[in-house]
Amino acid sequence: MRYGALEAGGTKMVLAIMDDFGKIQESVSIPTRSPDDTMPEMISFFCGKGISSLGIGSFGPLDLNPASSSYGSVTESPKLSWRHFPLRQAFADNLGIPVEIDTDVNAAALAEYCLGAARGKESCLYVTVGTGIGGGLIIHGKPVHGLMHPEIGHILLLPHPEDPAPDGFCPYHHHCLEGLASGPAVEKRWGIPGRDLPADHPAWHLEAHYLAQLCVNAILTFSPEIIIMGGGIMQQKHLFPLIRKETIRLLNGYIPEFLFGDGMSAYIVEPGLGTASGITGAYLLSRGV
Amino acid sequence: MRYGALEAGGTKMVLAIMDDFGKIQESVSIPTRSPDDTMPEMISFFCGKGISSLGIGSFGPLDLNPASSSYGSVTESPKLSWRHFPLRQAFADNLGIPVEIDTDVNAAALAEYCLGAARGKESCLYVTVGTGIGGGLIIHGKPVHGLMHPEIGHILLLPHPEDPAPDGFCPYHHHCLEGLASGPAVEKRWGIPGRDLPADHPAWHLEAHYLAQLCVNAILTFSPEIIIMGGGIMQQKHLFPLIRKETIRLLNGYIPEFLFGDGMSAYIVEPGLGTASGITGAYLLSRGV
Repeated sequence: MRYGALEAGGTKMVLAIMDDFGKIQESVSIPTRSPDDTMPEMISFFCGKGISSLGIGSFGPLDLNPASSSYGSVTESPKLSWRHFPLRQAFADNLGIPVEIDTDVNAAALAEYCLGAARGKESCLYVTVGTGIGGGLIIHGKPVHGLMHPEIGHILLLPHPEDPAPDGFCPYHHHCLEGLASGPAVEKRWGIPGRDLPADHPAWHLEAHYLAQLCVNAILTFSPEIIIMGGGIMQQKHLFPLIRKETIRLLNGYIPEFLFGDGMSAYIVEPGLGTASGITGAYLLSRGV
Repeated sequence: MRYGALEAGGTKMVLAIMDDFGKIQESVSIPTRSPDDTMPEMISFFCGKGISSLGIGSFGPLDLNPASSSYGSVTESPKLSWRHFPLRQAFADNLGIPVEIDTDVNAAALAEYCLGAARGKESCLYVTVGTGIGGGLIIHGKPVHGLMHPEIGHILLLPHPEDPAPDGFCPYHHHCLEGLASGPAVEKRWGIPGRDLPADHPAWHLEAHYLAQLCVNAILTFSPEIIIMGGGIMQQKHLFPLIRKETIRLLNGYIPEFLFGDGMSAYIVEPGLGTASGITGAYLLSRGV
């Protein structure tokens, strides 16, 4: 059998045909333009490939209430041309096969949970830190959707006293995680993109401080068995030890370190699937996982 | 059949014998002293009552890892005489019946989920605001334990600019929820216990602000279908409309209000079981729920 997988991102769409073992047989990446421009190209890629189902991990927000008439549609996205676009339904109508959908981060979390760094755990938090900050949460073996799907990128943080831009850059809230620690926030604060900042630049201590606040918050709020951090900013691998150290400092002994099992370096980790978490998650959705 | 239920609190123990319908047949409340003083009294209450199992909702922290040799023991509690006491095992050994245990707040959340304000929902957060602040979380129909059980009372908040004691009173962290908004924090900040502060005192706007930060955090982090708030401080019923209003203000339009279904007054609510959530949850644990 063959399966279709779509990782629908704000800047590019990654499309793949995969086999029973999750091996990629064919894949393309196309820029994300408007639905009118992008959908026909995607439909034509998947058509005639003999896929029995399609899984989509998509940017959002999405309507993920299966009882809703707009289930699988994009909702109040800042990408205006996609707002209220019936993403799942458009593929189902055009391909005539079952289509499963979840957020990009939930798909990535699912992949890490089934096949990656969180294998064998009961719960995990997958966080992507890049153009935006998003989180996918698996608890009791299933992605968490709740009332609306969680938007962990917008939790409110305490600004660091040495932050030259303590309000952050989110248009909705002062002091929110994404406004303080996304890739664009780093670039706006220092006038230099993150990838060009040296590893000893103060930007990274500040970045680690804010991402550690996220980790502390997650540990105290739902206590995931592992936290996996991916995305463009996390390509700065030197951030990991800084985040782990700052998490311990902020917890200030309240959670004994031995509870983290094999220690912080096994608790706050890189994705086990590298940059393939998203497309692998879309594949797992196509398999009904 | 008859079942034993124990709501083990830091200041008192509530013990009950319940029937198949969850009706209380007999109940006593005794002060919480040391295990040496309190355990024999509790054992003697439950002995000879023909109960087939016991459920315990207990103060913590607890070891809730079923694979652990100290499963069901109190761990690093500030109540020193209970630290490392094998609470579950002591009852199992003395009564010779199955004993189930969870945190007091998870038990209360379970009761609200099965029989109270969260009936028919898929997830809920139960928060108690009193001497301490704790939260019990149900997701996908089951209590969340995670790596260590969550300690939502210690999430870090942004101090309010008009707070005369912006660091709060927690010995572990500045700015944490419990340190800013528990009953003792209210009393320390204003020099007057909460129950004696008039409804128009600025204390309540500050209290609502901090509890709204908790709600915003929960909504953005795991998006429960309902938030239930109980405990001593929440007996100040005028707090509810203030918290709802402040939650909407802090979200600042990021989560559209229509997503809250029947509105905020049906989203942030009092316990459906009143003050009986805890003992009812202990009963449900005894029934293997």
